[in-house]
Amino acid sequence: MKKMHTVDIIAKKRDGMILSEKELTFLINAYTAGEIPDYQMAAWLMAVYQKGMTDEETAILTLAMAKSGDMIDLTSIPGIKVDKHSTGGVADTTTLVLAPLVAATGVPVAKMSGRGLGFTGGTIDKLESIPGLNATLTKEEFISNLLKHNLAITGQTADIAPADGKIYALRDVTATIESIPLIASSIMSKKIAAGADKILLDVKVGNGAFMKKMADALKLAETMVRIGELVGRQTIAAITNMDEPLGEAVGNSLEVREAIGILSGRGSHSLKDVCVTLGSYMLVLAGAACSPAVGKKLLRELLDSGKGLNKFREFIKVQGGNDEIVANPLLLPQAGIKLTLVSKHKGFINQINAAQVGFTAMRLGAGREYKEQQIDLAAGIIMHCRVGDYVEIDQPLATIYTNDGNKLENAISMLRQSIVLGSDSVPIPPLIYGIVDINGFHQEPV
Amino acid sequence: MKKMHTVDIIAKKRDGMILSEKELTFLINAYTAGEIPDYQMAAWLMAVYQKGMTDEETAILTLAMAKSGDMIDLTSIPGIKVDKHSTGGVADTTTLVLAPLVAATGVPVAKMSGRGLGFTGGTIDKLESIPGLNATLTKEEFISNLLKHNLAITGQTADIAPADGKIYALRDVTATIESIPLIASSIMSKKIAAGADKILLDVKVGNGAFMKKMADALKLAETMVRIGELVGRQTIAAITNMDEPLGEAVGNSLEVREAIGILSGRGSHSLKDVCVTLGSYMLVLAGAACSPAVGKKLLRELLDSGKGLNKFREFIKVQGGNDEIVANPLLLPQAGIKLTLVSKHKGFINQINAAQVGFTAMRLGAGREYKEQQIDLAAGIIMHCRVGDYVEIDQPLATIYTNDGNKLENAISMLRQSIVLGSDSVPIPPLIYGIVDINGFHQEPV
Repeated sequence: MKKMHTVDIIAKKRDGMILSEKELTFLINAYTAGEIPDYQMAAWLMAVYQKGMTDEETAILTLAMAKSGDMIDLTSIPGIKVDKHSTGGVADTTTLVLAPLVAATGVPVAKMSGRGLGFTGGTIDKLESIPGLNATLTKEEFISNLLKHNLAITGQTADIAPADGKIYALRDVTATIESIPLIASSIMSKKIAAGADKILLDVKVGNGAFMKKMADALKLAETMVRIGELVGRQTIAAITNMDEPLGEAVGNSLEVREAIGILSGRGSHSLKDVCVTLGSYMLVLAGAACSPAVGKKLLRELLDSGKGLNKFREFIKVQGGNDEIVANPLLLPQAGIKLTLVSKHKGFINQINAAQVGFTAMRLGAGREYKEQQIDLAAGIIMHCRVGDYVEIDQPLATIYTNDGNKLENAISMLRQSIVLGSDSVPIPPLIYGIVDINGFHQEPV
Repeated sequence: MKKMHTVDIIAKKRDGMILSEKELTFLINAYTAGEIPDYQMAAWLMAVYQKGMTDEETAILTLAMAKSGDMIDLTSIPGIKVDKHSTGGVADTTTLVLAPLVAATGVPVAKMSGRGLGFTGGTIDKLESIPGLNATLTKEEFISNLLKHNLAITGQTADIAPADGKIYALRDVTATIESIPLIASSIMSKKIAAGADKILLDVKVGNGAFMKKMADALKLAETMVRIGELVGRQTIAAITNMDEPLGEAVGNSLEVREAIGILSGRGSHSLKDVCVTLGSYMLVLAGAACSPAVGKKLLRELLDSGKGLNKFREFIKVQGGNDEIVANPLLLPQAGIKLTLVSKHKGFINQINAAQVGFTAMRLGAGREYKEQQIDLAAGIIMHCRVGDYVEIDQPLATIYTNDGNKLENAISMLRQSIVLGSDSVPIPPLIYGIVDINGFHQEPV
């Protein structure tokens, strides 16, 4: 009888019809329980890929996936809990900066993060480059740290939205990854299960992002904002540029070091500006700032006063890490080999291909080609230029960090290809294209 | 690596691109060998359902499926071997009439047939209602009978196009049955593997057929004729009416009895006319008649002379059956209960719902709801009216045959619903809508 039922659900979606709450909930629950075989789910996923889903269907799917495992209860933590999620990019160190910065304002930051895959990094890998740091908290430790310190970051357990884990693995081998409703429900189900009251999304767009085109990024952002609305978790999305690497550092300990720099008032302006903007919307969502402008002012003051850095130090200590790395970043894993590429010509940087830079870092050992791969926490790249810069001959473009000399030749070649010079200057692209909330897309007020 | 490859093939079809011979052949071979999991094939099937395939792709798929198991070699049989296939209907007893009739002309008839499922019957079930008859011949018996008697009918073995068997089972549970290229390749792969030089297709259209709409039936016929052309097996399709039951008898031993009647010059004109037309095209394909008209004349002479009936008797005896059933059909399985429905009103028969009649017979025990179900070879229905007939009150409409009195009430109700009377006469629908050959669709010359 169950198989009959499942065939009917597949056929409805195949024909572009709208599925009911009962049908979608049955599908997810029975699939998670192993009562629906992979081949039926695969056919349904391809039908969804081809025919799409309404926002209402996507919200129902999201909630069913969220409820497929543990639902973290954060009601014991006072205040509005705001989670932040990035769709993934290169030199995207925002969480390491934002989490202590926002926590320093008194707003609780409860974060479940992932590991890197392909050309994108993951916060848990970055944190694990801090000697001693434990990024696998128990539920009790997580809640206790939050209550005492306003801040806790842990890896996502298999008990959070297990339906998503199972479906994502199937999408990966059935060519059904790139579907807006499936991407949106995958992201949002984990955020909802992790217990946040409100959600800030950083939807990256560009060659180093999952969404290559603005139209797709907008549609994804709108879908997730609408899901948040439908399930009663207010959601705002920033659409940000990922055509070139966001910060200077690509690679785990290198990114920790860059985050420390920014929290100390130094380092990449692009990364700092994006962090301040994202943080300001987190404060607005949490009710800790009446407008993004007020939020930005507050966050810049915390950066200048060093209170964000203090919170980062406190966080490291609480989660068992060596907080001396903040004063002495040489205590982080260090690469044995450093090689700086210099420009062979003079001219303007016309393009820095973020995906190519990300893949270069991955090949150097900073990231994973497949899930179980070991990574080298010291490996990576520091960029010394941005699109729009003018460079002279012999001016440094980027530095390669690795422990494996055999990887240098390929890395040099890949990295050189990713940086395109021209004789004419190019306009500097915006960092933040705009904001999507329930009223639609609008420009970010400067 | 193989999984990677398969994902690329799925993605290409997902995006509506044309797959190469190498890709399609890899897909079918690796799936048959168990190297591609069901969930990837399911996603691919749904992509094909949504995006379709060109005739060239369908022909390549068909050939790969045909070659996935035994390819029967009939070259030791002299002459052109013509196979005939019906897409399935109700009271569709054509094979039992046609096989001996065409064999009686000297054209070899090598037939692999199936069993019934749902509202449609199957030739092997019908033959097995003849006491003693063996419809599971070895390859040697099959060839030997053909050489000696021009005629052999056997059940399709699992070694014929096993890829089709495996894919069909998956389509059944993933809502991907109703796809023209998938239906066409399924039918044609089995015909090609069974060794026929040329193929005559009877594509049924109407409520008692798989294809409900003329446009779908035409598209299916055109696709199969084109596959035949592309793989070098000339194929012609007749498009025939399946809005009402074709013959009078629905049910296994009842249909054998009707076939004997027609081979004796008696019985349903509609069934006889369709058999003669289909047979004439088989003779044309075999080079035994220069035109359908000449073929029809020859076949009618064989019916009148009783030579077709003699061949049927010979066939039964050769395959181990009791040939006395031809003279004495009471030796066939007989139902313990007979009940004749009479008309409650006078008027014109406006409609006889073939699917409903078929399902009624299935419920009486003549057919299967699921594959492994036991059937009652004596159960079924004899229709006493056709669309266009005028009936008086108390005139017999149909007779129900069963061995289970508990099934009568439901059968009476279902059968009454299937026969629709009206006060006005309706035009008598054509039996044969037309013929599809490589030049396209044309009317059948009367």
